[in-house]
Amino acid sequence: MNGAETLVETLADQGVEVCFANPGTSEMHFLAALENPRIRSVLCLFEGVATGAADGWARMMDRPASTLLHLGPGLANGLANIHNAKRAGVGMVNVIGEHSTRHLKYDAPLTSDIQGLARPLCHWIRTTDGSHAIAADTAAAVAKGNEGLISALILPGDASWGEAGELKRQPKATTVRPAPDAARVDHVVKVLKSGEPTLIILAGRSMRGLPLDLAGRIAATTNCRIATQFFSVRIERGAGRAPLERIPYAVDQAIAFLSGFKHIITVETGEPIAFFAYPDKPSLLKPADCQLHSLVEKGEDSAAGLEMLAEALGALKTLPTLQARIEEPMPQGALNPTSIAKALSYAMPEHCILVDESLTTGRESMGLTAGARPHDTIQNMGGSIGYGTPVATGASMACPDRRTFCMVGDGSAMYTIQSLWTQAREGLPVTTIIFANNTYAILKAEYANMGAGGEGKAAPGPRALSMIDIDNPTIDWVAMAKSMGVPAVSVDTAEDFTQAMINSTREAGPVLIEVKL
Amino acid sequence: MNGAETLVETLADQGVEVCFANPGTSEMHFLAALENPRIRSVLCLFEGVATGAADGWARMMDRPASTLLHLGPGLANGLANIHNAKRAGVGMVNVIGEHSTRHLKYDAPLTSDIQGLARPLCHWIRTTDGSHAIAADTAAAVAKGNEGLISALILPGDASWGEAGELKRQPKATTVRPAPDAARVDHVVKVLKSGEPTLIILAGRSMRGLPLDLAGRIAATTNCRIATQFFSVRIERGAGRAPLERIPYAVDQAIAFLSGFKHIITVETGEPIAFFAYPDKPSLLKPADCQLHSLVEKGEDSAAGLEMLAEALGALKTLPTLQARIEEPMPQGALNPTSIAKALSYAMPEHCILVDESLTTGRESMGLTAGARPHDTIQNMGGSIGYGTPVATGASMACPDRRTFCMVGDGSAMYTIQSLWTQAREGLPVTTIIFANNTYAILKAEYANMGAGGEGKAAPGPRALSMIDIDNPTIDWVAMAKSMGVPAVSVDTAEDFTQAMINSTREAGPVLIEVKL
Repeated sequence: MNGAETLVETLADQGVEVCFANPGTSEMHFLAALENPRIRSVLCLFEGVATGAADGWARMMDRPASTLLHLGPGLANGLANIHNAKRAGVGMVNVIGEHSTRHLKYDAPLTSDIQGLARPLCHWIRTTDGSHAIAADTAAAVAKGNEGLISALILPGDASWGEAGELKRQPKATTVRPAPDAARVDHVVKVLKSGEPTLIILAGRSMRGLPLDLAGRIAATTNCRIATQFFSVRIERGAGRAPLERIPYAVDQAIAFLSGFKHIITVETGEPIAFFAYPDKPSLLKPADCQLHSLVEKGEDSAAGLEMLAEALGALKTLPTLQARIEEPMPQGALNPTSIAKALSYAMPEHCILVDESLTTGRESMGLTAGARPHDTIQNMGGSIGYGTPVATGASMACPDRRTFCMVGDGSAMYTIQSLWTQAREGLPVTTIIFANNTYAILKAEYANMGAGGEGKAAPGPRALSMIDIDNPTIDWVAMAKSMGVPAVSVDTAEDFTQAMINSTREAGPVLIEVKL
Repeated sequence: MNGAETLVETLADQGVEVCFANPGTSEMHFLAALENPRIRSVLCLFEGVATGAADGWARMMDRPASTLLHLGPGLANGLANIHNAKRAGVGMVNVIGEHSTRHLKYDAPLTSDIQGLARPLCHWIRTTDGSHAIAADTAAAVAKGNEGLISALILPGDASWGEAGELKRQPKATTVRPAPDAARVDHVVKVLKSGEPTLIILAGRSMRGLPLDLAGRIAATTNCRIATQFFSVRIERGAGRAPLERIPYAVDQAIAFLSGFKHIITVETGEPIAFFAYPDKPSLLKPADCQLHSLVEKGEDSAAGLEMLAEALGALKTLPTLQARIEEPMPQGALNPTSIAKALSYAMPEHCILVDESLTTGRESMGLTAGARPHDTIQNMGGSIGYGTPVATGASMACPDRRTFCMVGDGSAMYTIQSLWTQAREGLPVTTIIFANNTYAILKAEYANMGAGGEGKAAPGPRALSMIDIDNPTIDWVAMAKSMGVPAVSVDTAEDFTQAMINSTREAGPVLIEVKL
């Protein structure tokens, strides 16, 4: 076997099933090795699609996907969505081609410091030392991915094409997430028994399945409230689940939400902070007299931690308050955040996946979709736009039996619109919902929040506005979708939007809905 | 003035005219400062468009443009085209927003190591130390850009919005490119007088205007040959110019081209090397007994160096052999590299700009367009695809009176296709020519060159091939262009292609031509 073949075999041995790829000349032997049917390789027309898809896949599977990126610039193109995955604690195994070792000294045009580019955003970085080292390096890269970390395995051409001898199968890494310290649990028991107003903030893997159920029981027992940060990696929501509140995005609203709490207990997360800094607003959001208590640290086992807590509180047999299905008539008339949320609640089928990158239009949707049929919601924790359509692509690859809805603003969608092509190619059941308000609407609000215009001037001037509005020309989303083989429809009423969503669930492949706002 | 206002004023004072921008919340005060009419701000829907456009602008103007990028991920998205500009020796002033200093310690979602991300690809990196430091830092950043270097000025929110007091106008930096050492010139005179076969390789600023004319005179006097590397920053070509040969891309062809030369003289470049390493091919291309002589180093003044050389050789009064206009009838029939090149030669108007990112289809075009009307050709020296359409956008912004033709393969075009929107918005006279062969054609050849399939197997297997072909679905380029407000036409004969190019020159704004191959 050559080095590339040992890489692909080892990826498969370690449980990696898929490679989101955009290859180049230096990766031709790796490409040849991908003939191996144990790995499904998926072509993406831009590396930001590949890394975002790997993120989406891992969110649904709880184990990492791999990517294939072409040298330093290929990695650079993928970094924004690597940043988003890193911030969400989602593991990823990036394989990055490099020039053959003997070629590096000539400083050829595509030469760059790949390790340097990886360093700020990848947890584990290694340039493999030769064909014989690849199997062990690959196993180490996947082990880090299993821990929810970002790996960057840099593969020089000569290591890829060189003879590696007989493959040395690597032991499969097992990841153990430790339970939290018992003393921490005891402390939190006391806090919850104090009767003082307390909020538990859930994150990581605690917002679904057993830990979510346990959190519901703890809330029912102690009258504490349970919430998420504004952005979460993946939440099981809707009818039949313990409902979670959401800490608002805007600083003033978040402060109002948190006011009155004397204690905040964190599970796989930290203190709530402002997304951005503003001249006249604080970065920290909780009241000054509110105490912070960590129950489960990032990387620890929140199911074990919440079980210990529930047992100590005698909450294991308390039934949680579960969300009821809220049935409302199909919404009619004008499209606005409320009618859009009601349309989602009406149309979303059971067990669908909702990838939410709607920065402004979708902000009200969480509250109003609480009573939707049970579904998974995925959000961007890194703040770099161009996240939704790739993540929906990867989530759908992982769960082809469930429809994935991707809510995305027009500005964000344009960043990585190449995702549509991969969705068409793979026949993925994704419904992309473009909120076409023809503006970076979030920036209009932020301009005012920042006081950027000076005293008493909330609205941007004409030149600043021309950097925020994207209405000249308006983007024709139906033509955009058609160009990449995705059928599309444009809607401008709540009933047409609802019907378009329902219709899309009857299609086998991708659909795009342009929501004209 | 606040810090952001001093930044914009200082950019303008230092000769920066344009800012290619995609702003975010942390840059709202900078956005407000861009109300200043001394700087033209241009919205790009992806940062790779912004940095590529800055590259194209600087190539035509010989001084840098600025960009506005949103935090670490915004910079990351722009890095691939920063890499390409760096490799071409094209200066650029990147302004990168950063969280307010006091917010950094909370590690908010969009926090990352911006300096770390900039380090591998930017020559000059500084996080400004506060509002009062911005004017001097901006002048320093532009000075580096004037030297053909990449600057990264990182602008924390509080420095942007803080009071900077009265603006301290900065002295305008002057860039002096030193003349080469006289001893080097004397040595090269001896080489050229030896009568042994000699090739002068021109690069940097030596392929246009006075230095090109001087090189033509030197060639006419000494019978040396004059050529470029395969990729060049900007060449004045066509009728009336001294014609330059081109060292081929493929290793075997390049070796054949260089065989027989006893001397290579370099001007603003180094020894010819292979773009990639291959298992059984060398990295160095010149014959073993060929000697290398540097006449002008990168950053030196090639006009001065070639003038010194021409004077020492008595070549100043020798007339150079100039390229004649080659008039041929309009090509007819099938589209192939030859008929495409003839169509270009027939249709390209005088003084147009040709941005060439056609990796395979356009390879023959250089030879066959030698006798076209005089024009400028721009090529990608960094090898990262997604280069052509942004660079054409920026070049056209710089030269709105000249039509810019952008030849680009479909695979490359998809990387930064958002450029079309900015072209439509600004009404730029750009004709984008998409070579739609529905494949990464270069990779098919490279797969064979690499011997990736193993002995006797030149063609990729079905899974590898599915990672190279982009024909499922085929991209509808007319719909793609329409989606972003650019009129488009699809052609499949040489005469229709030629006519479409001619028609495009009669339009005021952008046009896209899909060339079906």
